Amino acid sequence: MLAAELRVSRGVVTDAYQRLIDDGHAAGRGRAGTVVVAAPVLPPSPSPDRPSRSPVITPLPGAEVFDAVRAAPARIDLTPGVPDLTAFPRAAWLRAERAVLEELEPSHFGYGDPRGAPPMRLAVSRWLARNRGIRADPGEIIVVAGVAQALTLLGEVLRHHGVDAVAVEDPGSLGARQHLRHGGLATPPVPVDDDGLLVSELRAPAVLLTPAHQFPMGVVLGGSRRRELMSWASSGGIVLEDDYDAEHRYDRAPVPAVRSMLPEVCYMGSVSKLLAPALRVGWLLAPPPFFADLVAAKRFADLGNPVLAQLVLARLMENGELERQLRVVRGRHRRRRDAMIRALASELPSAVVHGAAAGLHLTVTFDADVDDVELAAAALAEGVKVQPLSWHRQRPGRAGLVLGYAARTATEIAEGVAVLGRLVGPSP
Amino acid sequence: MLAAELRVSRGVVTDAYQRLIDDGHAAGRGRAGTVVVAAPVLPPSPSPDRPSRSPVITPLPGAEVFDAVRAAPARIDLTPGVPDLTAFPRAAWLRAERAVLEELEPSHFGYGDPRGAPPMRLAVSRWLARNRGIRADPGEIIVVAGVAQALTLLGEVLRHHGVDAVAVEDPGSLGARQHLRHGGLATPPVPVDDDGLLVSELRAPAVLLTPAHQFPMGVVLGGSRRRELMSWASSGGIVLEDDYDAEHRYDRAPVPAVRSMLPEVCYMGSVSKLLAPALRVGWLLAPPPFFADLVAAKRFADLGNPVLAQLVLARLMENGELERQLRVVRGRHRRRRDAMIRALASELPSAVVHGAAAGLHLTVTFDADVDDVELAAAALAEGVKVQPLSWHRQRPGRAGLVLGYAARTATEIAEGVAVLGRLVGPSP
Repeated sequence: MLAAELRVSRGVVTDAYQRLIDDGHAAGRGRAGTVVVAAPVLPPSPSPDRPSRSPVITPLPGAEVFDAVRAAPARIDLTPGVPDLTAFPRAAWLRAERAVLEELEPSHFGYGDPRGAPPMRLAVSRWLARNRGIRADPGEIIVVAGVAQALTLLGEVLRHHGVDAVAVEDPGSLGARQHLRHGGLATPPVPVDDDGLLVSELRAPAVLLTPAHQFPMGVVLGGSRRRELMSWASSGGIVLEDDYDAEHRYDRAPVPAVRSMLPEVCYMGSVSKLLAPALRVGWLLAPPPFFADLVAAKRFADLGNPVLAQLVLARLMENGELERQLRVVRGRHRRRRDAMIRALASELPSAVVHGAAAGLHLTVTFDADVDDVELAAAALAEGVKVQPLSWHRQRPGRAGLVLGYAARTATEIAEGVAVLGRLVGPSP
Repeated sequence: MLAAELRVSRGVVTDAYQRLIDDGHAAGRGRAGTVVVAAPVLPPSPSPDRPSRSPVITPLPGAEVFDAVRAAPARIDLTPGVPDLTAFPRAAWLRAERAVLEELEPSHFGYGDPRGAPPMRLAVSRWLARNRGIRADPGEIIVVAGVAQALTLLGEVLRHHGVDAVAVEDPGSLGARQHLRHGGLATPPVPVDDDGLLVSELRAPAVLLTPAHQFPMGVVLGGSRRRELMSWASSGGIVLEDDYDAEHRYDRAPVPAVRSMLPEVCYMGSVSKLLAPALRVGWLLAPPPFFADLVAAKRFADLGNPVLAQLVLARLMENGELERQLRVVRGRHRRRRDAMIRALASELPSAVVHGAAAGLHLTVTFDADVDDVELAAAALAEGVKVQPLSWHRQRPGRAGLVLGYAARTATEIAEGVAVLGRLVGPSP
């Protein structure tokens, strides 16, 4: 109807509506049509004397930093690592939950297997085969409370096996480093270049890495680096693979997991980036030398993940809902990524953009003399939440910002990047 | 109709139906009437040469013992610590989940507060005020994955505070002891008599106890012992209170928690005995010296409990469904307890019964020379699962069995106790 009125093709109108929906200006109501949603973008709160110090964003963040940042109010939250939460498939979840509650044997409400509910372990093994090229028996899988718990369990078990250090990528995830250190492990930094981790620089007995989409730089571990890593592992090195957002790849086929070629890898994944972090469900695969100890660590941690949510998720993985969900959000995430790239090109032309091929965030670096902690603190004071790249570094390096786009509308992204552009100022 | 046919009062028929439903022979279908359920009790499998050694029930159980016992097949499972799982309020749960999914802000699907979702912490604080006499601000509550996780978190934090030992009740829970030991703490035993833990025997810097219904003996910590404990705490002793099944009390008013009189207590409770262990939800209250460290420990453990189930539970706690559920199962549990007492009196007259006033299990002790590990192993070989009392002892003491009744029908209970009676043989 609108297409006829405007004398354009139906596809153009559909695209335009989709753009409005992506931006939060409109909401699809199926056959009932599309409604306009009131989502006013407020002007930035006045901040005449821009504070260069923030109580939240500081140069040496402690264990509570992510909670403090989360609790800080902001108009536009560009924190990385969160998918589009408005897309959570509430109806499909409820349908699956009803089916689970109708079918469940009473005994499943009792104490269960600390490794996870058998249907969930089967669903994960099939998911990993279809989506990550990994062949693993359900018996090799431990259902865990996300990659965070997997790291804590691995830290505990590795320490008991005499490992005192796990090398990490530099730059690399501050949160992962905090988890390993809390477990009493040193985290010596290993540089990352355009082909990923410099395997030749590895000196520690173990290494944690993100081969499919390096956090935060977004590079892929290259073919020759993979071969070097396999040779390092065959001489006794312990590889921990965090496959944290491997399913979110836009412009080419997914990169296979290192675990698909190397069964000795301790492999971690979760639904935090597929569906929602609040579910606290992930999986851990480990080779025989560590498996029994990891099961014991999981038992003492919490006696196993809650059962109902595992059974609901297993249904969504087995009946195709989760893959459908992934297709839906992938399109939306890609359009938001494009919006961020456009905004950065126009508002922050001095920034170099990294890691656009996949994931839920972009990283930008600056050539000029920028203090990224001060920049992120000033942005927060203007109502825009971003992470300074230096948080994720152990050794000095270029300043930058880590910018999540997946959970925000294109309008919010443009607005947030404009604030950053104003704060950085014109290129020299 | 049936009442008129049999010329008895409607109450008698209702009671009879209730007994049938309790026994699993019939299932209520509301106004649709009552249907007979096929639940044949199979004869014991033949075991001509009764094995005195079991691969599962052994004198020195390891960390995997509860998983191994759970996995062992049995006709009648009298394992203690599980409520009637057939009573799980599936319809109420699904209704609450639908309401939560309809109302939830998208941001709640993201990373959350490691202390738990605010509505759940509020609901727990109100629940504790109504049911356990505890006045605690929601800000003092940490939502955890059951008492098992609470013990692991407390163990970690106490160790960092220089505590190397937590005294435990003897007899006392093997599982709790395993958790503390896994955390690197010694667990010196302190005797229990009819008034509970002998506080005067405390030598360790901390103590874990079950004041409302001692596990496994079922005694209540007496008034003078409570005063002794408060005096011990005021001179620096650290009290950990496991209020594991305090809500299940049959013949008199609930015993208040020690925490209700002593705010310095680290207090643990859960929904495992109220609703279902598979939910893995509990709560931990801790005084200021430990609180921040416990929050950090919870953060590193799993970043916080899953959010959806917390919000569903909060609704059930706030709208009266959980208290209604408790009234329903309390009646059923009491009838099952009575059935077990009757069966013990007739089939195992040599046994002394302990702890009948509350809880989900009974403990029996034997005067005669009985090896309770051999007895439990022989019972398992005959298809009846029970725990030997000696598992829960650190020092020698009377042999006995710990017998759960809450999850089994009166018929199963009678059948299981008859097997035990046959194995023990006639009194001397």
